[in-house]
Amino acid sequence: MVGIVIVSHSPKVAEGIKDIAQQMAKDVNIVAAGGTSDGEIGTDALKIQEAIFEANTGNGVIVMVDLGSAVLSAETALEFLDEELRKNVRIADAPIVEGAIVAAVQASTGAGLEEVISTASEAYNLRKL
Amino acid sequence: MVGIVIVSHSPKVAEGIKDIAQQMAKDVNIVAAGGTSDGEIGTDALKIQEAIFEANTGNGVIVMVDLGSAVLSAETALEFLDEELRKNVRIADAPIVEGAIVAAVQASTGAGLEEVISTASEAYNLRKL
Repeated sequence: MVGIVIVSHSPKVAEGIKDIAQQMAKDVNIVAAGGTSDGEIGTDALKIQEAIFEANTGNGVIVMVDLGSAVLSAETALEFLDEELRKNVRIADAPIVEGAIVAAVQASTGAGLEEVISTASEAYNLRKL
Repeated sequence: MVGIVIVSHSPKVAEGIKDIAQQMAKDVNIVAAGGTSDGEIGTDALKIQEAIFEANTGNGVIVMVDLGSAVLSAETALEFLDEELRKNVRIADAPIVEGAIVAAVQASTGAGLEEVISTASEAYNLRKL
């Protein structure tokens, strides 16, 4: 199954999203990579890279991000991956909580990387009220 | 300023969103109301109601939610408010992380309830890549 990395500026947000998504998709490899290296508000490319290694089971990894500067850290993490792995990692353009949950459910069905990415992005179209 | 209540199924997500948003909008009253009464994954109407009281400083409160069942709990919480307060509380239709952050920044400028609600919803239109 496709693995999922959750990159939030807050370690608590990343871990909490993992908790919710994992409850709906027990077998998916979901890894939280929130906060800086010392657990403060921010993001860290090395932490993200390690999370990608951990999330990867050979079927690709999608990286969920919260804000613009998380995208920069995620892109830096991707640059340092070897080319083979990098081809199978994508940053999702999606709302982080809502996108991660639908992506996890989709990944649990065995869907491929492009399908999971596309499902995550479609969370922009879901309304709550 | 308008107050903000964060209702997530995960206590960590609610607290972490507060941490991020508060860093960008120090003076806004942001209250986390995540998880069930015993801290498990879920939501709790009573906890949300107490958070609304705490967030309210007389200028209205917006309630951010993560998933459909959080909306139900928030609606139940609103039903038990007295009419005067209830008129000044709105559930936002917005992505919870991205919406809470822009709403907090908007609230910090002294914007009114309708304007803050509308800013939160516009977060559906923001793209990350």
